[in-house]
Amino acid sequence: MPRYKCIISYDGTAFAGYQVQPEKRTVQSELEAALGKMHKGTHVKVTASGRTDAGVHAKGQVIHFDSTNALPAENWQKALNALLPHDIVVLAVEQVADDFHARFNPIGKEYRYRVERSPLRDPFQRHYAYHYPYPLDLEAMREAASYLVGTHDFTSFCASNTSVVDKVRTIHEIEVKEQGDSLVFRFFGTGFLYNMVRILVGTLLEVGSGKKKATDLPHVLAKCDRQAAGKTAPGHGLYLWEVYYPEN
Amino acid sequence: MPRYKCIISYDGTAFAGYQVQPEKRTVQSELEAALGKMHKGTHVKVTASGRTDAGVHAKGQVIHFDSTNALPAENWQKALNALLPHDIVVLAVEQVADDFHARFNPIGKEYRYRVERSPLRDPFQRHYAYHYPYPLDLEAMREAASYLVGTHDFTSFCASNTSVVDKVRTIHEIEVKEQGDSLVFRFFGTGFLYNMVRILVGTLLEVGSGKKKATDLPHVLAKCDRQAAGKTAPGHGLYLWEVYYPEN
Repeated sequence: MPRYKCIISYDGTAFAGYQVQPEKRTVQSELEAALGKMHKGTHVKVTASGRTDAGVHAKGQVIHFDSTNALPAENWQKALNALLPHDIVVLAVEQVADDFHARFNPIGKEYRYRVERSPLRDPFQRHYAYHYPYPLDLEAMREAASYLVGTHDFTSFCASNTSVVDKVRTIHEIEVKEQGDSLVFRFFGTGFLYNMVRILVGTLLEVGSGKKKATDLPHVLAKCDRQAAGKTAPGHGLYLWEVYYPEN
Repeated sequence: MPRYKCIISYDGTAFAGYQVQPEKRTVQSELEAALGKMHKGTHVKVTASGRTDAGVHAKGQVIHFDSTNALPAENWQKALNALLPHDIVVLAVEQVADDFHARFNPIGKEYRYRVERSPLRDPFQRHYAYHYPYPLDLEAMREAASYLVGTHDFTSFCASNTSVVDKVRTIHEIEVKEQGDSLVFRFFGTGFLYNMVRILVGTLLEVGSGKKKATDLPHVLAKCDRQAAGKTAPGHGLYLWEVYYPEN
């Protein structure tokens, strides 16, 4: 059965997250409902690069599914966009090899996190950035970030209710960039643990506001204890930006 | 009793419009609820420069109210922002003369309308711009706009279910500007009739797409008939941008 890879974008505001949950509106259930309509009601399972939490957005989530419908990629895109609700859009579709796997094949992921720093909250940003109107020492935050780059055991930066055993991950790059009144964090790495980006952001904000020192970070990593790191930043500032796969 | 003028901004998405309606969530009812809390439950009436429809946004709506609470303007702002829901924000407060009137005093208003032209709809813009992915002749639209500038009877551009008798208004300026993938219309005039900006935009889009000619516009105006103009563009692309009052 031909396999299709889709790049999708969604506004996470009105979803209880990516993954199917009973009685909840999720991205996966909307995708599977649209595909069901294209397959006479037959269930078509969708596999994503990873789940996203409630309120978390995606600019470049990747999914795959198998289908006997022999449609050109462009028609898949049009048909799905016609059936999907307006907070999800399919940006691209391509037929891929049978062994392509959205979840197991990624060689890298980029997440971005947006913090709105203006003194007054902006009604138009309330679902799209974390409003944090306090002074921040960006240099200290960048120094702290430099300790996080590399291959580390990120247990301190992982939600404690996770079943993943190996918590070693590699972060290739962390960028902390001012964009107008916003601060945009860019994280590029091999993969990220549950809540990891949000805990990284929460911890960097504690460094920026003076609650932690940049030089505390090696110790926070070494402790392998969730309590050592900072708070989990809210989901609505987070964007799954891009998922990288090996060249075909 | 001292009178206060506030400049407010709101995301219109989750409101049934500005004006109080039974059982509906409106901007006015949220403002009056917040003021009620600051006056031990006593109702404080809020008067706006004009109402906005469901889904219509405001970057610079102006309201006034009277209060015996002798707070400095800055404290009014802080207190209201602490009590208001996050889709409304008070940008500024000042005490004004007793004869200041948000609705009767404006000498000009600016509205903007945002059209998103990218081929694919953007989930993040679905409440903030009208998605119109079809070719547009901007020069024809600008020529058409030039016929609308000036003092005219705008009956053709007014929702027919209105009680206003005098439909003569003056438009000082209409700008049609490309901003990335968007087209932003800027309307600056003495005042606007019910649905007028949305009908102006709908008509200019019909000129842009070739359904009407720019040179039809003088006839559309002259007919004084709502049927002569184009469709009413959707509310969610519209922003009440600024309201101008005489210098104190």
